[in-house]
Amino acid sequence: MYSYKTLQELVNRKIDQEDLAKEPKQLYEPIKYILSLGGKRIRPVFVLMACNLFTDNVEKAINAALALEIFHNFTLLHDDIMDNSSLRRKKPTVHTKWNSNVAILSGDAMSIIAYEYITRDKKNNFFEIIDVFNKTALQVCDGQQYDMGFETEKMVSESDYLKMIELKTAVLIAASLKIGAIIGGASQEDAELLYSFGINIGLAFQIQDDFLDVYGDTKVFGKQTGNDIRTNKKTYLLIKAFELAKDNDYEELYKKFFVDNKPTEEKVNKVVNIYNKLGIKEIAKKTILEYFNEAFNNFEKVSVNKERKKELSFFIKNRLISRDN
Amino acid sequence: MYSYKTLQELVNRKIDQEDLAKEPKQLYEPIKYILSLGGKRIRPVFVLMACNLFTDNVEKAINAALALEIFHNFTLLHDDIMDNSSLRRKKPTVHTKWNSNVAILSGDAMSIIAYEYITRDKKNNFFEIIDVFNKTALQVCDGQQYDMGFETEKMVSESDYLKMIELKTAVLIAASLKIGAIIGGASQEDAELLYSFGINIGLAFQIQDDFLDVYGDTKVFGKQTGNDIRTNKKTYLLIKAFELAKDNDYEELYKKFFVDNKPTEEKVNKVVNIYNKLGIKEIAKKTILEYFNEAFNNFEKVSVNKERKKELSFFIKNRLISRDN
Repeated sequence: MYSYKTLQELVNRKIDQEDLAKEPKQLYEPIKYILSLGGKRIRPVFVLMACNLFTDNVEKAINAALALEIFHNFTLLHDDIMDNSSLRRKKPTVHTKWNSNVAILSGDAMSIIAYEYITRDKKNNFFEIIDVFNKTALQVCDGQQYDMGFETEKMVSESDYLKMIELKTAVLIAASLKIGAIIGGASQEDAELLYSFGINIGLAFQIQDDFLDVYGDTKVFGKQTGNDIRTNKKTYLLIKAFELAKDNDYEELYKKFFVDNKPTEEKVNKVVNIYNKLGIKEIAKKTILEYFNEAFNNFEKVSVNKERKKELSFFIKNRLISRDN
Repeated sequence: MYSYKTLQELVNRKIDQEDLAKEPKQLYEPIKYILSLGGKRIRPVFVLMACNLFTDNVEKAINAALALEIFHNFTLLHDDIMDNSSLRRKKPTVHTKWNSNVAILSGDAMSIIAYEYITRDKKNNFFEIIDVFNKTALQVCDGQQYDMGFETEKMVSESDYLKMIELKTAVLIAASLKIGAIIGGASQEDAELLYSFGINIGLAFQIQDDFLDVYGDTKVFGKQTGNDIRTNKKTYLLIKAFELAKDNDYEELYKKFFVDNKPTEEKVNKVVNIYNKLGIKEIAKKTILEYFNEAFNNFEKVSVNKERKKELSFFIKNRLISRDN
């Protein structure tokens, strides 16, 4: 079984080898740039790890792995334009370093390159794979649209929020696992179990991100806390707080987000105090744990011996902090 | 043999039947909108006509036809953002009617939907088709990037211009014909001949568009002439004029495009006078005719009897005005 680190290195090596020194430079340099910003490479590594559950030959999933990573980076590139974000992994975003037109077009090209990768393996199970890929790719667009729609709405329900993060984040993680499994030769049942595993892991990861933005240890996670509060971002924590807050707390939250919403430390402190009073920290941890448990309920049913599941299991348990934070 | 009109109606009917009343509305309504703006549907009809050269069963090419039309409209949607165009087929562009973010995301979804269509037909020749589609899709992005790059350059050579229009316009027309031919059961040789036919037709069409913008009959073509001159657009005519103009004419052209470039009638008149003096009208007509002849050299070699070629031949001869204008 290959470790996360080994597979991550394989992905990085393959990305480095990709010939992107092509003309026109203005189209391909931004692609090279965003792919070189690194990141955890979760999706491509999950493709390979899921494949590795069923076979030692993970090389046969490398094109699909790269397709998923390139597709993901295409969505980041366009999301950054839409969200007007100036930084990505501490570096200027493509539309900031170049301009919006370059970012639109390079993103378009990346989406095509992702398809080019997924169609490199001309095998029997190709149509099964491409159907998952097409459906997922469109769902990610749906998710981004729901997310943008939330910005103009004051109140978002928990179920709408969960639907949004499922589409925007979880389905691509789930699809990575499912596609890797199919390539590895999994039965349809196992591929579906890994898909459900991925959905639940994706939801857990996203709610954990929301959680860490408030309760994360700055030293460990390297980010200033409270950014989501400062920027009025709708998170699982905020949605639960609006759901549970009464009287003065509700008014205070409302004021801090919709009336006097300056991105001050005072805002962060006031909001976190309300979160604490309402027990939002515990609620979020409980929800993360529920998704985590549901994920592993599915994972345990995958008809592969425990030994083969160790690496994937280890990586996810390490990334999910809900049980000891 | 089906006529252009019959096949165009088939395409329109299929587009109307497509279920785009989906959620989130902000994502799918713009897609429905741009697809409903109509147009000549050249690419999908060419898919069907090329298929029809080899078989009477054109229905089997309908998914590929729609894929090409949806892909083309995706590029229009994003090009309109990049070019800051407010009108498309006399209606507001998507980013004007909604906003840029909606236009970026709906375009992204359309590109995925195009792929979804092209992968609907799970047949033996699928990989041949998808390889043409992938390569072409990326070339169209290359072409758009070259076109945008031209805006910041003063002088563009004829060969660079021809390369740009080949990538931005001709390859998609050529791919439509090639894909239709493959689906119809053409030999590889015939598919390639139709591809070359398409490249030459695409180049002839584009140069003809440049020509008609200056020398078109407003009553026939329904557009005001001189728009490209007013908006400083680099066209085949302008590039040839800069290449051939000397002394005062060159200075005058330079002044009108790069110094005192207000979009006035005086500018249009002055530039057209120079075009006339340099014989640009005749040069453009000659070039269009050369591409037209080269196109039909290839078309005649396609191993299908003349009778079957009549509809496609008739449509193109009707659209190309170079010989009698």
